[in-house]
Amino acid sequence: MEKFEVHILGCGSALPTTRHNATSQVIDLRDKLYMIDCGEGTQSQYRRAGLSFSRLGHIFISHLHGDHCFGLMGLISTLGLLGRTATLHIHAFPELETLMRPWLTYFCEGMPYEVEFHSFPHGCTDVIHEDRSVSVQAFPLSHRVPCCGFVFQEKPTAAHIRREMIDFYEIPISQINRIKNGEDYVTPDGKVIPNSRLTTPAATPRKYAYCSDTKFNANNVQYTHDADLLFHEATFADDRSARAEQTCHSTARQAAEMARLSHAKQLLIGHYSARYTDESVLLNEACETFPNTLLAEEGICYKV
Amino acid sequence: MEKFEVHILGCGSALPTTRHNATSQVIDLRDKLYMIDCGEGTQSQYRRAGLSFSRLGHIFISHLHGDHCFGLMGLISTLGLLGRTATLHIHAFPELETLMRPWLTYFCEGMPYEVEFHSFPHGCTDVIHEDRSVSVQAFPLSHRVPCCGFVFQEKPTAAHIRREMIDFYEIPISQINRIKNGEDYVTPDGKVIPNSRLTTPAATPRKYAYCSDTKFNANNVQYTHDADLLFHEATFADDRSARAEQTCHSTARQAAEMARLSHAKQLLIGHYSARYTDESVLLNEACETFPNTLLAEEGICYKV
Repeated sequence: MEKFEVHILGCGSALPTTRHNATSQVIDLRDKLYMIDCGEGTQSQYRRAGLSFSRLGHIFISHLHGDHCFGLMGLISTLGLLGRTATLHIHAFPELETLMRPWLTYFCEGMPYEVEFHSFPHGCTDVIHEDRSVSVQAFPLSHRVPCCGFVFQEKPTAAHIRREMIDFYEIPISQINRIKNGEDYVTPDGKVIPNSRLTTPAATPRKYAYCSDTKFNANNVQYTHDADLLFHEATFADDRSARAEQTCHSTARQAAEMARLSHAKQLLIGHYSARYTDESVLLNEACETFPNTLLAEEGICYKV
Repeated sequence: MEKFEVHILGCGSALPTTRHNATSQVIDLRDKLYMIDCGEGTQSQYRRAGLSFSRLGHIFISHLHGDHCFGLMGLISTLGLLGRTATLHIHAFPELETLMRPWLTYFCEGMPYEVEFHSFPHGCTDVIHEDRSVSVQAFPLSHRVPCCGFVFQEKPTAAHIRREMIDFYEIPISQINRIKNGEDYVTPDGKVIPNSRLTTPAATPRKYAYCSDTKFNANNVQYTHDADLLFHEATFADDRSARAEQTCHSTARQAAEMARLSHAKQLLIGHYSARYTDESVLLNEACETFPNTLLAEEGICYKV
């Protein structure tokens, strides 16, 4: 199975602590890297995780609160100092480009690469990025400011050729790509060999859904359904459910309920309030509703 | 002796590493805190150092390179989340306010305290801040962009009263403050008791000078002379002296030469290039010229 992993660079909330960094994640999919959110200190966490700066092509910003984007300027500057030449693509609401352009002009003059903004509107539900490996869809979350989640849907890979059948039917190499892409094979004497006999199916494409920051919103199951891995913020435990409601955040139990409603295979919770010095209370409350829950932790990589 | 210390929060250069953070220092003088520079990650380092956020009143920014100011937005936001009400004063070139105002308006709306900018011009040699404990003078450094150093000059404290002499001459309490401030005492029968008999002198006011980023510039001795502690950047060792010249930075040996010319009591070097994984080469080269040299290190506090 090809690589599809999520590196957690920061899983704290607005107030960074000595235990948790501001939000950032890196998706490693077939060796291309995609960043989601970029709080202060992300570049240092990126380096600690041993990730390659040159493999990073796209950054997706969920919303314009500082703990999700104050690390951008430092990261962008560092990429320049490292001699990057490839364009860096930033996907975000249009306000981010408006805010960042004057800083980029002032601080990043003469940088050897371009920063290209791909703005999408508040409330967007479009596929905002697509390449050979993945499509990334935005969807609206329910926060105090415009905010969006992201679905990373792996692209199907071609079927695997059964080498022994190719040999058996003496199929010419010129036909292999057609067969990989699903066609049957017709022998020189007109006999049809069904594709299913010549191939084994490709692995089922995987799905990663990211929900932070948001209050509980069951409507979002239309986007997060059947995720192999669902990241959902769990800022508070039940003891602060009123605070969660008031600040448009979720409790761990609500994150678990989203995973249950989504028929997710696994739930990863994070964005912990600074008030918790031990997140096991969050894990325990989530597991009561959705047992297959993991606590996000800086420096750990989770398979989708 | 009253407290006058420098906490090193970051002593790396433009490219942060897993070993060194971007530049920031905190001066703790008679329990008031003054920050110099605020690179990315400063707020986390501040917290790790166990410093009180509420005692921080003034931030001085030497120049507008990202590794000296990209931590400001995160720090300012955090102070707001912590419920600060006292105005925070930022002393910097005017360009900083121009760049930061739109970000403060967008990200810090409704914050419970004010950020007040005190701009001073490029090339400034004025005392830019003064209170009961300290005067802070700016002076121009020689870098690729406008840049300034800072001299923190402790204010003289009052002389210490010799209690036994006060008792001996039966001096009334109403006269004590006058005597502390240097006046002689005249007895009811007209006898003059010289101040020197009634007091012991206050400790000599101390001086801290900060020079980063800059190439070697002997002219600056007019500002740094007789510093009790001189911080001077030492980005490179002798092996990269051409690179130091080219990028307007200093070698460790040049930092030591500045300390020697300044008749400084002690030299603290920092702003290490990411290329050095062991700074002892910098220390050794500096010590050849100025033996009383220390290597700055994150989390360490140095007495002035």
